[in-house]
Amino acid sequence: MIVDCAIYEDGRRRDGRVDLHDAYRQCRQDGNFAWIGMYEPTEEEFDSLQREFDLHPLAVEDAIHAHQRPKLEVFDEMVFIVLKTARYEDSEEVVQFGEILIFLGEDYILTVRHGEASALKQVREALESDPELLRHGPGAVLHAIVDRVVDDYSPALQGLGVDIEEVENQVFSGGRSNPAERIYRLKREVLDFNRAAAPLVEPTDRLAKGHYALVHPEVRAYFRDVNDHLIRVHEQLESYRDLLTSILQANLAQITVRQNDDVRRISAIVAIVAVPTMIAGIYGMNFEHMPELTWTFGYPLVLAVMLALCAVLYRFFRRAGWL
Amino acid sequence: MIVDCAIYEDGRRRDGRVDLHDAYRQCRQDGNFAWIGMYEPTEEEFDSLQREFDLHPLAVEDAIHAHQRPKLEVFDEMVFIVLKTARYEDSEEVVQFGEILIFLGEDYILTVRHGEASALKQVREALESDPELLRHGPGAVLHAIVDRVVDDYSPALQGLGVDIEEVENQVFSGGRSNPAERIYRLKREVLDFNRAAAPLVEPTDRLAKGHYALVHPEVRAYFRDVNDHLIRVHEQLESYRDLLTSILQANLAQITVRQNDDVRRISAIVAIVAVPTMIAGIYGMNFEHMPELTWTFGYPLVLAVMLALCAVLYRFFRRAGWL
Amino acid sequence: MIVDCAIYEDGRRRDGRVDLHDAYRQCRQDGNFAWIGMYEPTEEEFDSLQREFDLHPLAVEDAIHAHQRPKLEVFDEMVFIVLKTARYEDSEEVVQFGEILIFLGEDYILTVRHGEASALKQVREALESDPELLRHGPGAVLHAIVDRVVDDYSPALQGLGVDIEEVENQVFSGGRSNPAERIYRLKREVLDFNRAAAPLVEPTDRLAKGHYALVHPEVRAYFRDVNDHLIRVHEQLESYRDLLTSILQANLAQITVRQNDDVRRISAIVAIVAVPTMIAGIYGMNFEHMPELTWTFGYPLVLAVMLALCAVLYRFFRRAGWL
Amino acid sequence: MIVDCAIYEDGRRRDGRVDLHDAYRQCRQDGNFAWIGMYEPTEEEFDSLQREFDLHPLAVEDAIHAHQRPKLEVFDEMVFIVLKTARYEDSEEVVQFGEILIFLGEDYILTVRHGEASALKQVREALESDPELLRHGPGAVLHAIVDRVVDDYSPALQGLGVDIEEVENQVFSGGRSNPAERIYRLKREVLDFNRAAAPLVEPTDRLAKGHYALVHPEVRAYFRDVNDHLIRVHEQLESYRDLLTSILQANLAQITVRQNDDVRRISAIVAIVAVPTMIAGIYGMNFEHMPELTWTFGYPLVLAVMLALCAVLYRFFRRAGWL
Amino acid sequence: MIVDCAIYEDGRRRDGRVDLHDAYRQCRQDGNFAWIGMYEPTEEEFDSLQREFDLHPLAVEDAIHAHQRPKLEVFDEMVFIVLKTARYEDSEEVVQFGEILIFLGEDYILTVRHGEASALKQVREALESDPELLRHGPGAVLHAIVDRVVDDYSPALQGLGVDIEEVENQVFSGGRSNPAERIYRLKREVLDFNRAAAPLVEPTDRLAKGHYALVHPEVRAYFRDVNDHLIRVHEQLESYRDLLTSILQANLAQITVRQNDDVRRISAIVAIVAVPTMIAGIYGMNFEHMPELTWTFGYPLVLAVMLALCAVLYRFFRRAGWL
Repeated sequence: MIVDCAIYEDGRRRDGRVDLHDAYRQCRQDGNFAWIGMYEPTEEEFDSLQREFDLHPLAVEDAIHAHQRPKLEVFDEMVFIVLKTARYEDSEEVVQFGEILIFLGEDYILTVRHGEASALKQVREALESDPELLRHGPGAVLHAIVDRVVDDYSPALQGLGVDIEEVENQVFSGGRSNPAERIYRLKREVLDFNRAAAPLVEPTDRLAKGHYALVHPEVRAYFRDVNDHLIRVHEQLESYRDLLTSILQANLAQITVRQNDDVRRISAIVAIVAVPTMIAGIYGMNFEHMPELTWTFGYPLVLAVMLALCAVLYRFFRRAGWL
Repeated sequence: MIVDCAIYEDGRRRDGRVDLHDAYRQCRQDGNFAWIGMYEPTEEEFDSLQREFDLHPLAVEDAIHAHQRPKLEVFDEMVFIVLKTARYEDSEEVVQFGEILIFLGEDYILTVRHGEASALKQVREALESDPELLRHGPGAVLHAIVDRVVDDYSPALQGLGVDIEEVENQVFSGGRSNPAERIYRLKREVLDFNRAAAPLVEPTDRLAKGHYALVHPEVRAYFRDVNDHLIRVHEQLESYRDLLTSILQANLAQITVRQNDDVRRISAIVAIVAVPTMIAGIYGMNFEHMPELTWTFGYPLVLAVMLALCAVLYRFFRRAGWL
Repeated sequence: MIVDCAIYEDGRRRDGRVDLHDAYRQCRQDGNFAWIGMYEPTEEEFDSLQREFDLHPLAVEDAIHAHQRPKLEVFDEMVFIVLKTARYEDSEEVVQFGEILIFLGEDYILTVRHGEASALKQVREALESDPELLRHGPGAVLHAIVDRVVDDYSPALQGLGVDIEEVENQVFSGGRSNPAERIYRLKREVLDFNRAAAPLVEPTDRLAKGHYALVHPEVRAYFRDVNDHLIRVHEQLESYRDLLTSILQANLAQITVRQNDDVRRISAIVAIVAVPTMIAGIYGMNFEHMPELTWTFGYPLVLAVMLALCAVLYRFFRRAGWL
Repeated sequence: MIVDCAIYEDGRRRDGRVDLHDAYRQCRQDGNFAWIGMYEPTEEEFDSLQREFDLHPLAVEDAIHAHQRPKLEVFDEMVFIVLKTARYEDSEEVVQFGEILIFLGEDYILTVRHGEASALKQVREALESDPELLRHGPGAVLHAIVDRVVDDYSPALQGLGVDIEEVENQVFSGGRSNPAERIYRLKREVLDFNRAAAPLVEPTDRLAKGHYALVHPEVRAYFRDVNDHLIRVHEQLESYRDLLTSILQANLAQITVRQNDDVRRISAIVAIVAVPTMIAGIYGMNFEHMPELTWTFGYPLVLAVMLALCAVLYRFFRRAGWL
Repeated sequence: MIVDCAIYEDGRRRDGRVDLHDAYRQCRQDGNFAWIGMYEPTEEEFDSLQREFDLHPLAVEDAIHAHQRPKLEVFDEMVFIVLKTARYEDSEEVVQFGEILIFLGEDYILTVRHGEASALKQVREALESDPELLRHGPGAVLHAIVDRVVDDYSPALQGLGVDIEEVENQVFSGGRSNPAERIYRLKREVLDFNRAAAPLVEPTDRLAKGHYALVHPEVRAYFRDVNDHLIRVHEQLESYRDLLTSILQANLAQITVRQNDDVRRISAIVAIVAVPTMIAGIYGMNFEHMPELTWTFGYPLVLAVMLALCAVLYRFFRRAGWL
């Protein structure tokens, strides 16, 4: 589905509706470029674009079927970029990934969104309000999109961070929960997220270093900033991963302690109860000659002894830390 | 065993049966090349091929005995490639590996299959229906084979992924199973698979970068795609490995919790039963002076006290989370 | 907020109050340079500086909003450096981070502090007392600041080291504490600290190798020293991280041992008490023909047997290491 | 001890006994080279060799004292290579290492064996039956030795593999063994083996790339093959190491499960027995008014109740998975 | 403190006492060089040396305060090297580190020892007995010192190795000790040792590759040997580290097994004792109609049944592996 199709002339959007064929013609003019936005396009929709801009069939295939890893590829006079967008569903503690694929030529930029990808509408509006930037050509659009995608990693990262702190509290709060599953699932999200973000580090570095003539020199410093942001995301994710591994271990220690505490306490109760039971057993024996049995205060005395023994044991167990 | 032997002229298969000696002669003609397919050939079968195409004895040895790690080697005017094919046997949760070894010369391509390697028949049929591609020479055939082999990694990868999810559910379902062995065996499969796939990353990168004149420039971009696919497989496997390590740890936590839960509950039952036993013991003592024994309602009272104590203990243990 | 603004002429501070506009004019003169220090400046405060020194908007944005990872970036004739300062709050076992951002030009150096960053006042005073050094230009100021920041890592590192030793003692002392949470939190601080310090290793190496004309050759050797210091910090942190992982494991072993010791001892008590209870039970049976019951010394004999059995069991358990 | 000393002329061994001094003289002739084999030589035995071939004192020292790590060093016109041989003692599950040190010059090759090194006699015999190869000079001998040493890694590797599978079966068989020590010792062997094999990867790569004029170009492809074999060994060992770490963890899980199973079952028995004990206690109380005691069928009724309760408990515990 | 000060002329030590000022003058002569040895010098003692040899203030600061990481730095015409010496205190299982700092110029070498550094006296004596070597200038002295320091790593390494074997035996011996603390402390020593040794690998490699004109070409091969030795030390330490991590895990498994064995056995005793207690309880009931009670041999029969049941249980528990 073609979502938007526009011609930019000297950094300003040309008025009026533009259809694909107008776009093909007008973008060839000096200083003009076309920006065509699509959402999960079909092969047929892509057909005329492919012929007009001489897009490489492999890139087109990727753009239609998606599910690529982030990458930047150069085909003759075209650069093809795949980005993964990330959004954190806090209720399910799951990172939702979308995909944006971009064809960048001298006088055109094609953007293809798949799945839950952040809408590019705001990016377009922000750019259109800054003709100075748009004058740098499609490279400026590329930067604006990559920048937005990477900026959108931050809330996802923060969401993960908040959940990790929650899980830390769960583990160390002394409560009875065993968040092993939650820790494991968070780790999986962190690994998935990193697989979406890390492969972009190197391409943005190359963009920042100005390996591509298609990107205006002025724009390069901005890619350095994006690259920096990505490294930060990557380092944070690596650190999350390390932390989650440690929490999993610490959780095991906490559970072991807590559960053994319980067993120890119950065993201690059994042990304390066993002592008066034993004494009662003794005075339940049927020997003919048991002088205590005839004592007037034999019974209350024995009860007192039982109580005293229990108290002594209780204090002893308490001191030994068993209760 | 020679499975198929054909001459391609300008991208089209020459009609009629071709035997080896026709192939040797005809492939030398401009624009022609021979594609000879073998299955677990013997030394004798390889003999004339080796002499005719001047194949390096080491490569021939590899092709006959197989069990190589994936690699790409250059011998003067020949490129020798070893691929590992992978097929997932879901019933046994085992990845079955086969081997395809390829000799690539200017005017010939020899393919040797070993073990459970994916049949190349479909590859050949697909190629023969696209003379445009075949015109790029044996390099195009090489790409088609590598592409197929790597594509076939996907279902194996998915099979592993599904089994990992199953094992996650087993661990976290709260059931009584201990899937430690299954986790361990999956990890071994993941390691084996990675040993088959990862060494191909670098050779396909070199093919994509066009280090070999034997591969037509048009075909290079396609190798970039294969390389990308391989990196994705490799990253996914690394991530599986990391996850399986974490599951093994989480499994230990789950088992510890579950088992201690049991022991705790049983101990709690013993503790609750111990209390009325103690009381019964007390009233089983043979003291002459035990006033309660003569009370008319002594017995039901004691029974009531016992029940009440058990109820109190039950509620206390319940609240403490011990039952 | 502008904290201090000074002009240095031939390594000496010019007398009298200098406002921004004096600074702009005077720093252009040969051998002069301006050092303007700010604390969490607003966009407005930065405005004239940006215009006057032609600072890149991205760097300015970073300087105002902070929260960057340490880095060194080159913009045409300006070098932009981000440093993380670290201070260890021993009471909370938390490393507090601040940020210092530096703009370095040929005739100016702008320093921007954020958060808990070490005050630069002492750095300025130390430098002003050494005109020889200041004569090397703003690069000497840069070195002095980086050196101070990195020097300030040492007490933080030592604080962590002391707490790690404390936690080691806790784990191995035989006490009843379970410092899993403390170990985990220390590990998190170590990871955070490393994320603040490690990214500086490479930029200081580049400064030491003299990639930047803005830094006087004489100053380079001093950056080598700073770089060395940073590598030491980084290696120490890596080693802390490894140690903390091991302590977490050792802690689990210690807890397991300690807790099982307890359960074993309590169980042993129950077992010892169970034996006389059984004997008492036997002589509590109501058989008509139990000769022992009529013996004159039956009762004391049985008591003696009970005691003897308990003693034997006690010794046996003791020898088996169960008590 | 000098084991064998021979002169090869145009790929053929010269007849008759050759002593060292003949060898020194004859090897200088065009197309000739000497191959002198030693076993744990003394300093004195090495003396004349060192003077004659101008061997570097450091290499000679290494050759006499051995215990080097595998390496390849270049001294002017001599190449010095250290190899570790490996043999697996299956009865003790220990890899035995030997050492072969080789001095390679233009017209000589000196081989020094230490410890359990594979005898080189077969290598020599195999080579002497292939004059074509020997004509390539001492480099061909070097290849034959390295090839043999690396080939001999395979049975050792397989031996380890078999023992790892055995240990897997031990862990997962459900038996009562705790093979923690065996796993640990296997891991140590794997680490030791890797320290013997891995350092050879890089030197054989250099030999394959033809960095050394002493090695005939024809022989280089053969070193590529050896290099490939070594990488396979190295990757397999890395994978063993990873697997053994996982088995150690899985073993802990298995042991925990098995042992807790036992404790749970015993506790369940105690709990079941406790219930009739309690009931018996109740009817052992001495209350005057206990109507049940006078019932004619009181006793069998109570016994029946006890049995019924035990049966109910047994089924309940069974269902809860506690028995 | 200046420990020794000598002038070497053509490889021979000049007779008679030489004070600093003689040394400054005489070392400038062709073929001469001075070797000045110090122990923990003060700033004042260093003063004239710094001026005379134009030493860089940063290196001088390092030499006085020590606590550097091993490194090699180049200042104009001087090379500055920091070495860590290691000595193993077997009684405390602690590696003691000292520091040797060396200034190497064209005609001088200054050696500064700190802490427990191996005395350099023997090195000096060994060198003075080999004028051939000393003629190669101060570079030969540098090699002799580095060689000695690295050689001294071997006994420390062996000491660690012996203690690791001891700890292995402790873990697997079946005894009751829990060497978790010892394992942890050994790991810390291994990490510390590695931090002292590993940073030297790269500088000695550079010295071996002859990057420094100050080092005579003849001496370079000797640095290759030292470098090799260092890599061996480093690899051994890495392997120790890996092993200690595994021992810590294996120790946990051993402890778990041993402790659970105990608990299981004690529980089994309790279970066995519970059965006769229950039977005794039954015959202690006060039912009027209990025929067994009046049997003449009722009592011995019941005792026999109790014994038989205990025996059966014992055998059953034994077979189940619970006792």
